[in-house]
Formats: sequence, C-alpha cells, structure tokens
Amino acid sequence: MAIDLSLPGEVQALVDRTRSFVREHVVPLEDAHDGDIAAAGGDTFRVELQQAAQEAGVFAPHAPVEYGGHGLGMSDRAPVFEEAGYSLFGPTALNIAAPDEGNVHMLAHIANPEQKAQYLAPLAHGDMRSAFAMTEPAPGAGSDPSALSTRAVRSEGGWRINGTKLFITGADGAGFFIIMARTSGEPGARGGATMFLAPADTPGIRVGRHLDTLDRSMVGGHCEVLFEDLLVPDSAVLGEVDRGFEYAQVRLGPARMTHVMRWLGAARRGHDVAVAQVARREGFGAKLGDLGMVQKMVADNEIDIAATRALLTRACWELDRGESAGNATSIAKTYAAEAIFRIVDRSMQMCGGLGVSGDLPLARLSREVRPFRIYDGPSEVHRWAIAKRTVGAAKRALRDSE
Amino acid sequence: MAIDLSLPGEVQALVDRTRSFVREHVVPLEDAHDGDIAAAGGDTFRVELQQAAQEAGVFAPHAPVEYGGHGLGMSDRAPVFEEAGYSLFGPTALNIAAPDEGNVHMLAHIANPEQKAQYLAPLAHGDMRSAFAMTEPAPGAGSDPSALSTRAVRSEGGWRINGTKLFITGADGAGFFIIMARTSGEPGARGGATMFLAPADTPGIRVGRHLDTLDRSMVGGHCEVLFEDLLVPDSAVLGEVDRGFEYAQVRLGPARMTHVMRWLGAARRGHDVAVAQVARREGFGAKLGDLGMVQKMVADNEIDIAATRALLTRACWELDRGESAGNATSIAKTYAAEAIFRIVDRSMQMCGGLGVSGDLPLARLSREVRPFRIYDGPSEVHRWAIAKRTVGAAKRALRDSE
Amino acid sequence: MAIDLSLPGEVQALVDRTRSFVREHVVPLEDAHDGDIAAAGGDTFRVELQQAAQEAGVFAPHAPVEYGGHGLGMSDRAPVFEEAGYSLFGPTALNIAAPDEGNVHMLAHIANPEQKAQYLAPLAHGDMRSAFAMTEPAPGAGSDPSALSTRAVRSEGGWRINGTKLFITGADGAGFFIIMARTSGEPGARGGATMFLAPADTPGIRVGRHLDTLDRSMVGGHCEVLFEDLLVPDSAVLGEVDRGFEYAQVRLGPARMTHVMRWLGAARRGHDVAVAQVARREGFGAKLGDLGMVQKMVADNEIDIAATRALLTRACWELDRGESAGNATSIAKTYAAEAIFRIVDRSMQMCGGLGVSGDLPLARLSREVRPFRIYDGPSEVHRWAIAKRTVGAAKRALRDSE
Amino acid sequence: MAIDLSLPGEVQALVDRTRSFVREHVVPLEDAHDGDIAAAGGDTFRVELQQAAQEAGVFAPHAPVEYGGHGLGMSDRAPVFEEAGYSLFGPTALNIAAPDEGNVHMLAHIANPEQKAQYLAPLAHGDMRSAFAMTEPAPGAGSDPSALSTRAVRSEGGWRINGTKLFITGADGAGFFIIMARTSGEPGARGGATMFLAPADTPGIRVGRHLDTLDRSMVGGHCEVLFEDLLVPDSAVLGEVDRGFEYAQVRLGPARMTHVMRWLGAARRGHDVAVAQVARREGFGAKLGDLGMVQKMVADNEIDIAATRALLTRACWELDRGESAGNATSIAKTYAAEAIFRIVDRSMQMCGGLGVSGDLPLARLSREVRPFRIYDGPSEVHRWAIAKRTVGAAKRALRDSE
Repeated sequence: MAIDLSLPGEVQALVDRTRSFVREHVVPLEDAHDGDIAAAGGDTFRVELQQAAQEAGVFAPHAPVEYGGHGLGMSDRAPVFEEAGYSLFGPTALNIAAPDEGNVHMLAHIANPEQKAQYLAPLAHGDMRSAFAMTEPAPGAGSDPSALSTRAVRSEGGWRINGTKLFITGADGAGFFIIMARTSGEPGARGGATMFLAPADTPGIRVGRHLDTLDRSMVGGHCEVLFEDLLVPDSAVLGEVDRGFEYAQVRLGPARMTHVMRWLGAARRGHDVAVAQVARREGFGAKLGDLGMVQKMVADNEIDIAATRALLTRACWELDRGESAGNATSIAKTYAAEAIFRIVDRSMQMCGGLGVSGDLPLARLSREVRPFRIYDGPSEVHRWAIAKRTVGAAKRALRDSE
Repeated sequence: MAIDLSLPGEVQALVDRTRSFVREHVVPLEDAHDGDIAAAGGDTFRVELQQAAQEAGVFAPHAPVEYGGHGLGMSDRAPVFEEAGYSLFGPTALNIAAPDEGNVHMLAHIANPEQKAQYLAPLAHGDMRSAFAMTEPAPGAGSDPSALSTRAVRSEGGWRINGTKLFITGADGAGFFIIMARTSGEPGARGGATMFLAPADTPGIRVGRHLDTLDRSMVGGHCEVLFEDLLVPDSAVLGEVDRGFEYAQVRLGPARMTHVMRWLGAARRGHDVAVAQVARREGFGAKLGDLGMVQKMVADNEIDIAATRALLTRACWELDRGESAGNATSIAKTYAAEAIFRIVDRSMQMCGGLGVSGDLPLARLSREVRPFRIYDGPSEVHRWAIAKRTVGAAKRALRDSE
Repeated sequence: MAIDLSLPGEVQALVDRTRSFVREHVVPLEDAHDGDIAAAGGDTFRVELQQAAQEAGVFAPHAPVEYGGHGLGMSDRAPVFEEAGYSLFGPTALNIAAPDEGNVHMLAHIANPEQKAQYLAPLAHGDMRSAFAMTEPAPGAGSDPSALSTRAVRSEGGWRINGTKLFITGADGAGFFIIMARTSGEPGARGGATMFLAPADTPGIRVGRHLDTLDRSMVGGHCEVLFEDLLVPDSAVLGEVDRGFEYAQVRLGPARMTHVMRWLGAARRGHDVAVAQVARREGFGAKLGDLGMVQKMVADNEIDIAATRALLTRACWELDRGESAGNATSIAKTYAAEAIFRIVDRSMQMCGGLGVSGDLPLARLSREVRPFRIYDGPSEVHRWAIAKRTVGAAKRALRDSE
Repeated sequence: MAIDLSLPGEVQALVDRTRSFVREHVVPLEDAHDGDIAAAGGDTFRVELQQAAQEAGVFAPHAPVEYGGHGLGMSDRAPVFEEAGYSLFGPTALNIAAPDEGNVHMLAHIANPEQKAQYLAPLAHGDMRSAFAMTEPAPGAGSDPSALSTRAVRSEGGWRINGTKLFITGADGAGFFIIMARTSGEPGARGGATMFLAPADTPGIRVGRHLDTLDRSMVGGHCEVLFEDLLVPDSAVLGEVDRGFEYAQVRLGPARMTHVMRWLGAARRGHDVAVAQVARREGFGAKLGDLGMVQKMVADNEIDIAATRALLTRACWELDRGESAGNATSIAKTYAAEAIFRIVDRSMQMCGGLGVSGDLPLARLSREVRPFRIYDGPSEVHRWAIAKRTVGAAKRALRDSE
C-alpha cells in the first residue's frame, strides 16, 4: 500500500546468481581481452561468455520469455544489469550490451511477427549481433536528431537509401542494421523519419573505418557505415513510415537507463578496487583509508553511488508504469554519467601511480566511462531539455495568471 | 510485488491539502513575521497558525493517532513535510518544526505512560513547545557526542544536574526540556549518558543568551541553557539510566530525515521563485530563462531536487522497515544539506540584484538553509562515518581472505 | 629587466601601516557597529574612523597627491586595499569604500577643473560621500547597460532628467550624485548615454527606500533614487554628451579590481579566524586542524587566496600600462567573486555551529561577500563576455583561413 | 621599480620562435607517432626533432649557456616551455622533457666538474637521455619519500646498491641513472639518502617491464628498474653522502613548475582545438560556440588558463629569487594539475563524439594530463603540506600569545 523498495524474491535470486557468475567466470578472463579497437575480445570470446551465462542461468534477463529471456521489467533489470556491469565483459556475457539490448527492447515493442522471427529471435538468443544506424557526421543527426539527412526515397517495390552514418556501435560484425532515414521533410524538420531493417550483407551497406575512441569495450566498435543505393523492400519498414523519431523515443528512455545500470556496476567495481587498496596500504603513519582526505573520496563515492541508484529507481518505476519518463530519465542519465565519472576518477586518485597504470583496472575503467557524458545525449542537451520543460511550465503559468 | 513508489490515496490527499494550506494561508503571512532573533513570529503567531492548520485538517501529520495526529510513517511524512517546508512558517503551523517534531517521535518510542501524559500529549497538541538539551560549548558534546560533560549525580530521591548547553533550539519559551547528562564515565567515553525530562520552570534551569545565527526561523531561537544544581526525581529519567546515547540514535536518524524533508520544501520554494522570475524577465534579447547559462542553473536545481528526494525515499523506507539506516540517513543528509544550499544559491544568482535583496524571499532562504550543512552533524562528520563503514568492511574482508 | 613582483619600499611601508592600523584601531570597533540597514555605523562613525586613518598616515591611498592622497596606481593599491578590507570598516576608514573610491578615480580622469574643485576635492578629503546612479529597475539598465531608460532632455540652459534608479549604493546621505541618463537613442542602443553631476539637495532628486540586502556594510545602503523633473545646467555634464558608456568603462575596470582587493582582505580575515579556531579546538582525538578533511578546506582556501591575488596582479599591471584590460578584469573578477565566497563558506564550515553564529565574524562576512558574485556584473555576464571574445577570435581566424 | 610582468625582448623572441617551430614543424608530425607504450616515437624520432629545434634556434632553453643552452631562469622558461608543450612532442624536440630537463637543472647545481663533463654535457646536448630512480613499489618511497628502502652499503672502493624502483620515467633507453638510495637510517627516517650516478650499462642495473599508464608521451616510458648488487665507485656520489633528500628538493620545486608549464601548453592546445570546433559547427539553430552552456565551458577554460599562468608567475619569481618557494610551488602545482585536467575535459565535452575519438587530439590529451594530478606529488599530499604550514603557523601564534 505504501512505498516499497524491496525486490521480488526471484529477482533477488537472479541478482545473486549474476553477481557470482560475473565475479567467478567473467572477471578472471578480463586481462586476456583488454581489447584492440575492433573487437573487445571479438565474437569468439562473446560466444564463449554467453554459453557460460546460459549455463549459469543468467542469460538475457531483459528478453521476452518467449525468446528465451527472463522477461524482466525496468525496475527488476536495474540490480541485475548493475551486477553484470561489474565487469566490462559482463553485459556481453548476458547479451545485454548496447546496442543489442536496446534493439531487443525496441523490436519486441514495434516489430511485426515476421520481423520478430527474422531479427528478434536470433538477436535475443545471441546468434547474431545488431547495430542501430542513426548518428551521422556533422551537420547531420547527432545531439539534434532532426538534422537527419540520410534519405530513403520510394523506388519500385521498396526504398532506396543513401547516406553516411558515424559512431555506429557494434557495426563491425553485426548481423543486421536498424537504419534511420528521412522519408519526408528536410533536415531540421521534426518529423519524417522512418526505420528500416536490413541484413548486414545486403548490397549497398558498407562498414567503414573504426573511430579510435577512449572506450574499447564494445564488441564491433564504433564505426562509420555507408549506405550507397541500398535497396530494401517495403517489408523492411519497422513499424510505420514517418514514425521513426517516435519509435526512437521508445528505445531511448529505457536504453539510457540500462546504460546507467551497466556503468554503475563499472563504477562500483572501480570503487571496490580503490577501497580495497586504501584499506591495505600504509602511508603517513596510517592506513591510507584512515586519512581524512581519502575518507572524503570514499564517502563521496558512496554518496554518488547511492544517488545514482536512487534516481534510477525512480525513472525505472515511471517507465514500468508506461510513462514516457522523459524528465526522469534525463535527470538520471545526466546525474549518473557525471557521478560515474567522478567515482572512477576518485578511485584512480586514491590509488596513486598504480591507479593510472595497467596494474589495476582503474585507468581502463576511466577511459570506458568518460564518453558516457556524451553518448546518449551530452549532459548539455539533457540539461537544456530539463530546463525547457521547467521554464516552459513557468511561462504557461504566467500566461494563465495574466 | 515489485518496487512501488506510489503514495497511498489518503497520504496523497493530505499532501494536496497541505500544499493548498501552505500556499493560501501561510505564505501570505510570511512578510509580517520575518523574524527577530528570539521568536520567528513568536508563540502567539504560532498558535494562530496551528489553529488554522487544525481547521484545514493538516495538523500533526507525524503524531500518533491517539495524540491527535495522522500517525504517518517516515515514507508518508516525506511529501507532506516537503509541502509544509515550502514556507519557513509551514512546519510551525503543522507542529512539525524542530525540535518538537523529533521530540514527539522519541517520546512516543521511549516515554512511559505518565511521561506521555505529562509531556507528549501537550506537545503533540501544540499546547507547549519543548527543547532537546544535548549540545555543549567546546570542549563538550558537539559533533562528537561522547565529549558530553554535563553531569547528573545521584542525590537523595533523584539526580542533581550541572552543566552548560549551547545551541539549544527552541529553548526560549519551551515548556519542558529533555536533558542529556553524563551519569557514568568521563568525557570521551562512549556510554554513560542519561536523558531526563524537566518542566522549564524547574528551579536550576536558566535560559541564557540567544546565539545570533544566520537562520532565524526557529521559534524560541538557539540559546545557551544552564543547569545549576538542577534537582530532578527518578521519575524524570526517560527510559533507562546510561542508555541516553542509544536513545539519541532513535531520535537522530528520523530527525535528520525530517529536516531534509522540510528544507527540501524550502529549496523548492526558492527554485520556483527564481524560475518564475527568469520566465518573466528579459535580457540580452531573450527571456533570461532561455539563456543557456540560466538553463544550466535551472536544470542543476531540478537534478538536485530529484536526487535529494530519491535519497530520502530510500532512507525513509529503511527506517520504516525498522532498520537503523545509519548509512542511508548519513548519505541522504549530507547530499541534501549541500544540494539544498546549492539550489537556493543558484536561485539567488538567477535573480541578480533582487535575489540578494528583501524584495524576494531568496536571501532570507539562503540564510536559513546554510547552517543545515552543520546542524545535525556537519557534512565532514557524516562523510567520516560513511567512510569508516566502507573502509572498515574492506579491512575485515582483507583479514578474512588472509 | 625580467618579471618583478616586488613592491616598492614606500608601498610596502604603507601596506604595513595599514595592516597595523586596521588590526589595532578598526577591528576592535567592529562589534559596536554591525550595521542596521541604513548606515553601517553611519557618517559619524565614518568621520571618526577617517580622522584616525589620517593620523595614522594611511588615508586615501588612491587619491591624487594634489587632493591629499598617496597617488597609488592599481598595482600598488592591491596590497594596501587588501589590508584595509581585513575589516569591513577598513575601506570606510581609508576613504576607499565603494562607490566613493571609484568616483574619485573617474572624476580625476574626466572632470574639468571646476568640477574637480566642487566635487573631487571634498570627496577625496572625506568631507562628503557620493553615489553613482546607473542601475535601474527592470527592464532598465542592469547587467545589460544599454537598456538605460532614464532620460535627459534638452531644456533651456541645461537638461531635464526623469527616471528611477535602483541599488544605488551610498545614496542615503550622499553629498552628490553622478547620474547616468540617456541623451539620445532608445533603450537597447549601445550609445547615447551622458553623465551628469548634481548636488544631492538639488530639487528633483529623491532618495527612496533601502533595499534590504544580504550585505550591510555600505555606508548609505543600497537605495532607490528617483529623478523627477530634475533640472541641471550644461556645466553639470561630466566630460562630453553621449560618451557616458565610454566613461563608465573607465570607472568599471578599476572599480571591479578594487572590489576584489577589498573583498580579498575580508576573505583572508575569515580564513584567519577559522584557522585560529581549528588550531585551538580538539575533536575526534586531535586538533581539528590536523584532521584531513579540515586540512583540505584550509589548503583550498590558501589556493583560492593565492589564485585571486595572482589574477589581480595581472589585471592591475595591464590597467597601469593603460590597457583596457577588459578580459583580464573580467577573469579576475569572476574568479575572485566565486573564490572569496568559497573561502568564507569553508571558514564557516570549519567552525561548526559557532561559524554560523554571531560569536565569530564569519556569518556576517558570508552575507557581505555573497552579493559580489552579482554586483559589478554577475559571473554569468562576465563569462559571456569572455567567451564572446574567445569564440569571436576563432570565428575570425576561420574566415581568414577560408 | 613597481611590479612588472613584461618579458625581456630576447625572451619574447624565443617564445615567438618556439611557437612557430612547434606549430610548423612538430604538430604536423604528431599523427605519425602517437606512441606505443615503450617509446613515444623513440629515440630516432627524438634525434630528428632535436636537430630541427637546433636549426630553429630553440633547443635547450633551460641549459646553461656553457652547455649549449639559452640559460633561462624560471620566469623566462615559463612562456617558452608553455609554447613547447603545445605539442606533446614539443618538449622532446627542445630537450626539455621530463626527466632530462629536471636532471640538467639538478646536475648544473650539484655535480662536480668531472660529473658535469661525463653526464651533464651529453645530456644538455641531447646526446643521451637520463632517468631519475627514486620512486619504489609499496611500501617504499612514493608520496612519502622517507619510506625509501633501496640500500647502498659500503663496499670496497665504493657502494653496493640493492633495491627495486617503479615508475622510472625514461628508463628504457636512458644513458645513465641518478639513483636515490638509503645510506643510513631505516625506512621512515627523514634523512640518510644519497644520490648516485651510474651509466645505464653498468652491471647490476636491469630495466624491467613498462607500466601501461594512461599517458604515453614520455620517451622511454615509465619502467620498473632493478638494482641487483650494483657496484659504483665513490666518484659516483652526487654531492655529498646522506644529503640526497635535500638535493631532491633542489630538483623538485623547479621540476614541478616546468611540468606545469608544459602541461599548460597542452591544455591550451586542447582548448584551441575545441574553440575552433565550436566556432565552426552548428546545432540548435546557432553556432555551438554561441550557446550559453558552451560559452560557460569556454570561459571557464580561459579562467583556468589565466589562473594557472598567474600562479606559475608567482612561484617562478620566488624560485628565481633563490627562495625555496615550497608553498608557492605546491599551490601552483595543485591548482594547475586540476585546472589542466578540467580544461582538457571541457574541451572534449565541447566536441561531443569527435572529442572522445581519435579524429581530434583531445582524447589523447585527456589521457596524458590525467596522471599529473598524481605525479610529482598527488594533490592530496600537496594540500596536506600547505595546510600543515598554515595550521602550524596558527598553532605557534597561539602559543606565543598565551
């Protein structure tokens, strides 16, 4: 009847299994795969990890039950994904890494039965990976999606797509692409986008160079993708024509939150490594962890972890109730991206020289989490959206009172 | 079965009534009582406000039903107290201002039936005010309660108390005092404190000077209180002898959280005033609220409000489950005290010169909220406690693994 | 030949005399005059202080030698003014408080011989005070001076001025006003302002209410001033017609820096009080000043003091070379206003409950320094100006390279 | 006679030459050498760069004139080194990279004529590199140098050295080592250290693994170095026995400041790249650089650059006067390390996805500058030292007044 923050028993059990699985099976394999740019261990390693996750009963917590998943809602995903994120390879093992996890979510909501059979089923089972082709080089779609300039024009029996995409996560090795293209209007118009599905080996799709980003843990990297007279049939349209921006929102809110869950796990990992270090090492006549300035960093990490988790709880609850939760997810994402970065940064600082070396996982973590303040909407864009809502409401109240 | 953040219907109704009551009945009276040091409007004004609150059906949401209150738990108090805090006089009106609110809470848990009849009943009904006499001038009890140096020694048929207290909120005009005194051990010892109850007119109690603090909204001020050969009978002992520190904890966790609730309401008030201002005023060719640097302040306020509320939700839920919630309340209090200050500070900044003048309530609010980073445990002490738990756990884990 | 930061001997001697004078003669008088809104001790107290300063040989360090001052340039003023600012009453004692100090500076540069005799001479000698009437209520001149809407229109033998001013520092009791009024163009136009001089008792000048601001240390307060058909002769024009904005710049850069000098002294005072406190008091088994979190606050104060002083040195040197120094003064003012606030805020925090009480001067100081982040250009406006220069230069470089 | 911040003409000319040289000759070569862990381009590339610098007349600005340098003092080095730091390879080109630059400085002060001929001359001319072997793995010398545990014991005709060093910059490929070893006392003792000089090919010196640090721009990397029964003659002692800690201080203050100079150049590079980007790119209906939140980042970068430079000016002036400048260098180093990191971090943020990719140099820069908050004394250790001085002075003042 009143507020309740307790987890259902079977969810708690899945959290516990995930925690054990990640610490016992995934963490020990990390050092062998710290990732060249293209692969983060690559698909061979991914398949091994996913088999282990299936044996441990922790695979695909997010996927619908009919596709072999656990069918968890957002609130229940939060603690499970956080445990998975404790290793940078944990999300891959559970098949909940970006962008596949968000694509499963979106296909489950929007795809028709044929599309589900062709794309969702193998994706959910880990038989292939996917990519979501939306971002474009300037001056195309980026923080401002309405700048979309990739075009899909009517062609006999289907659509002809031309355009260039950038920062397409997982593109190298993906089995299929979800392609956002403009079917009406001009760049800058708020509508007119459509989503298309296409197998990766369709002629006219070319995966270009990898961007050499700070982060390295995404299987398939962040790539340039070119669509050159790509022809797709009408059956490739996901949902309805011209509703692409609307569908992107369906994907966006939850995808932001699952990012937060995973990165929160990574931040906790960094914090735990640092706390163990300062609990062990001596300096200036005490354990480092008993010195006031170190205690301040430890406490600030604890506060940032707690606040991130608390904001996530709120946003997930709104999403599970079917609300758009645009404000709650913007707030949680903005706070989390900055807090997670601070947590890992302080953790490095607590460990001194070792903290910035490869002897501890902290430097690696710091590189992985930094881009989150930019990916999925830079902090500035989210703040702008939050303020627009708040100031807009005040303007309306003013007008009403006049 | 899953996480649920919705409010029970009757609580939501009380929240709504409180919101209307504060905005319609309390806010309009603020300017007439902006508070000399001693009184914050004084008891005459308090009684008027409380009668209005009773008529509006919003009086004493926290007090047990048998004492005329609504009997709300911590989770349910949060949104009600926040609405009350929207005016600095709102908590007084609802009889939930510090220290009375915390004293009601503690007496309801610890007092015996006679004590409840003598002290709790009139306090809950607003017939008198109370004070909690714990803090002492240096080097006595402060951030470090174990430094307690006020003494109660056995005397025929009771106890003789001597000592000086400082920063005793509400002392001037209080009907009775709850007195923390050392009954065994020396200053620095972790146990040995006892709580005593005494009517304010008992010989040997003297209320000294008011401290001229930044904040002015506490009825009865922050005073020096002297106990000079104060004699109290055995029946004045609250609970059991030597368990005073333990009882203080009972009071402390919830009292921290109700402070957060009220001050969060005050911060929201400041934010609303500032947002209305920037939604109205022009400068540099736009509404101020459409300029990016102002939008950043608005968004940061929204984030701080949401995070404070989310951390509060967590801590209250733990308290309602009967947990000590020491860590959760330390985290929520520390974050909240700093966030609330930032919110009001940004609100002033958004309003420029008017923001620091008496033409808007912001300068006043800024003075009221600043001390919260010190009262109820300075941020540094809470961070120290948080870090000690975290590092302590890591040390134990290290020992276990060796 | 190389960079030299040493002070000339006679300046160092004046610094030393000022330091002794303020600590021995001004600080002890503070408590007796902590300032009702209108007066900050009032003119009687001011005259007493100034006589003492004259006897100590520290009066009017900034005024031209021919008007009884020491004729110091900006670089040499910095350490002297900082010592004066160590007490909130120090600048008044030396006759270098705002706005008189900036007005002396401007009159020395722009006034004609008759005006100097009539206004500058008595002002420099402390025989009267002055006010600079520029800021207006919204939507008039504020952060954006071009919004100036007070009008001066040609009238036989002179000008007729109408308009309302707000936040006019020192207005109550001023001997004369420097009035900024629009003589051509419409509000929003970048030119068209003229400065006029008028004795305070000229018919048509009315000093209205005091704004009840956080700060209280300005003799004469911050007032509303109304010009109602104020008639002034042509000889009242300061400099030339329509060059008012230009002259305001002459006053503005140095005035910003002298504010920084004085407030830096106030911040150092707060820091010294707090450091003395934590060097004395014990808690948690050590002197407070030996605890890591307190050490962090102490060190951050030292860093903020050093950085403020270093930025000031740079800006003053540019001003002394005759540069406009617009960027250097914006940078120094913005950094200083925020740093000074942080210093005082940390000093309060270090002192716990006493820090927010009247038992120490910290709460008072915190109220005095907060508005500086708004007065003399809010931080946001200075940041906007700094960024415009930087981005503008980059745009020009881009165009040149195309 | 008064404060003067102008540069001597010949220094300004060297600044200008260095600026041109770095932008025209070094920056274009960067992409070809972005550095595997071991080499940062390696010695072949280093020699090429240094020949170019010699031809441009900008080589070795810091080295004594008799060793082919320009003989600049600290104040004059600041702007030259800053220009060199504009490219990560600039310091290598000018032969002013760590640790060689600091070693030249120290050898010029302490070495005897034979040592100068053998070590200083080739080092100053770029004929070989060097390493300073001080830091040890825990629990040895680190932030707390007194923990030094490498031992040098008397052996016939010289000393036998045993110990392990870590984080030894430039060790791989160095021509000689300066070795800090304990000649008396136990780890924890404040004295008892001696410096020894030894060619890198002396038996008993073994360069171990490279630490895989965030930064990659140091030629020769950061290595483990092992001394296994290393025998050195008495003539290998640098200065006098047991005065090693004292000599380390000679090196430390200036070395901290030259680090700041170089990294400030790197930060300015990042800032310039970002400003050019936001001056060019559009979004949300304007150039990005005209949006308020971006303007805030630009202005904060300008403020951080100015404050770093101003604090550096102060510390260098003190060092040039022969003062120990311990406090001024601690303040400048702490502020600079944090400011430089913020500058580069904001620069990345302004550039969005490209900012964290290899398409711009920002992600690389962010990795290079992060460790500076740890190297040369973590911020926490410097803050502790600053606070100890301040609180210590207050304690002495208290004692004197009692």
